Amino acid sequence: MSVSRYAIGADIGGTNLRVALVKSDATVVEKVKVSSSGDVVASLISAIEDLYTGETVGIGLGLAGVVDRKRGVVEKSPNLPSIDGVSFIDALGKRFPLPVYVDNDANAAALGEKWAGAGTDFRSFVLFTLGTGIGGGVVHDGRLLDISAELGHISVEASGVRCPCGNNGCLEAYAAARAMVGRVVEALEGGAESLMKDCCSGNIYRLTPEDIYRYALEGDGLARETLKTAGRYLGVGIASMINVFSPEAVILSGGLTGAWNIYVEEAIREASKRAFPELFRSVKILPARLGDDAGMIGAAHIVFQKEQPSRSTAPV
Amino acid sequence: MSVSRYAIGADIGGTNLRVALVKSDATVVEKVKVSSSGDVVASLISAIEDLYTGETVGIGLGLAGVVDRKRGVVEKSPNLPSIDGVSFIDALGKRFPLPVYVDNDANAAALGEKWAGAGTDFRSFVLFTLGTGIGGGVVHDGRLLDISAELGHISVEASGVRCPCGNNGCLEAYAAARAMVGRVVEALEGGAESLMKDCCSGNIYRLTPEDIYRYALEGDGLARETLKTAGRYLGVGIASMINVFSPEAVILSGGLTGAWNIYVEEAIREASKRAFPELFRSVKILPARLGDDAGMIGAAHIVFQKEQPSRSTAPV
Repeated sequence: MSVSRYAIGADIGGTNLRVALVKSDATVVEKVKVSSSGDVVASLISAIEDLYTGETVGIGLGLAGVVDRKRGVVEKSPNLPSIDGVSFIDALGKRFPLPVYVDNDANAAALGEKWAGAGTDFRSFVLFTLGTGIGGGVVHDGRLLDISAELGHISVEASGVRCPCGNNGCLEAYAAARAMVGRVVEALEGGAESLMKDCCSGNIYRLTPEDIYRYALEGDGLARETLKTAGRYLGVGIASMINVFSPEAVILSGGLTGAWNIYVEEAIREASKRAFPELFRSVKILPARLGDDAGMIGAAHIVFQKEQPSRSTAPV
Repeated sequence: MSVSRYAIGADIGGTNLRVALVKSDATVVEKVKVSSSGDVVASLISAIEDLYTGETVGIGLGLAGVVDRKRGVVEKSPNLPSIDGVSFIDALGKRFPLPVYVDNDANAAALGEKWAGAGTDFRSFVLFTLGTGIGGGVVHDGRLLDISAELGHISVEASGVRCPCGNNGCLEAYAAARAMVGRVVEALEGGAESLMKDCCSGNIYRLTPEDIYRYALEGDGLARETLKTAGRYLGVGIASMINVFSPEAVILSGGLTGAWNIYVEEAIREASKRAFPELFRSVKILPARLGDDAGMIGAAHIVFQKEQPSRSTAPV
């Protein structure tokens, strides 16, 4: 009989900090969600203290931004500047007698989907996280590639809009939620006709991507065109990554996949016109399965993976 | 004392078919070059017959286009349509009692540079082949990734010019030799002032990238601007691939690297402004070292790699 092991997995990416106690069979035993607007390290320590059990073998973190895996430091987090330069291995290592591993948040999500989600059947896939920004993770030959995989920061319009990352025309600046909301607000400010003028008690600056999708379903022209334009750009990015990675699958995760029938279907249509036909034919494009849990589950999986060598000495 | 082994390596990409007898220490013993305008398979067989020795352990081919490695078939070769659908494993397997391995030509060049060229010191690098078109190969964790790596077919101008591959705004359509020549010819046809009007006995349709570079060195404005514009686009592509692969190095190979001080330096300047600074800081951008031999040497290396398992039974 094999003994269950547990790891803490945390996803430190978007507006919320998500932390879970994950069992070695990939089930989430318990999870908490805290705002990431305060002191992220303090919130994280407090959440881990709540979840910690005696059988916990390690802590895995998925962090937004460019991560130095060895040092456990976030080198640059454009979407969560408060964690820039923070050494999580130091901070958590002092508090808990456990090994701490870090990776990029989208890489962790890819690992989660590979282990227990939409990626289990594929030896290779490219995962896009579609939310406020766009991130990515790439699985090749059955394993997560330890590359930056900043798929939101490939330039799809060389002379296009400036991205906060410093590049111009990034995929993220055209196909992510922030870009969509920006485009709608700009259009409404410019006097465009749209039902969205009346959204949010008349305060268009509170519009969310969910609102845009809702209005699109009601037939609003501006809302539909915004989603479709963003979807076409996503398709450009997907096609480029198909041409680079020739993956078996492209897995799409994140809140924006909720607008699948407009946004993602437009992306698939566009990608089908752009990718090498020989490569597109053999690729499956499908939704992630673990939802918001992917990053936590993947981060916990890093712990179990690292722990493997010592298992060989344990009774089978 | 270890016994020398030999493999045939062939590069079937550009206007010429290059075939070499390569020793297991990576030296090229003998090589031949034939035009690829005729019957490619017949020319290849004839070249191999010339080079073949009793110690030859296998044949490796680097083929332009999307390659099915297992079946040894070129699925699609936009730049060399005559090899579309050809099964090289069948064709050569019938003629020679040797194992035949195939890969994409740029992948083979990357493998060559990893084995015996500019890539020997790096665990990870992205190689671009810069010629008529643009190809690529990616080494990660010390090994060539078996991905399509069609780096010339990432879209850098989503609404840009149509590429023969079917996509719009491909890197290749802006930064490769064919694009440069096309831009110059169009400008001259439109009456642009340039010394290049007098090139090639007045026949501007015979202009080559070498001509453009020569005129650029002489200070011709159109020639310089053409090289720099192409270089800037190359920089866009390099930055995107740095953001995706976070490599230790970017290695540039192919004829266009002859214009290093204008074309490539502009590319490096552009990439430095666009890539994540944290990633750009740690990347080296450098020229390939094997020149036109890279593909042949890399293709031969595939043979030696595949042969490895049987070596373990040989005397050390």
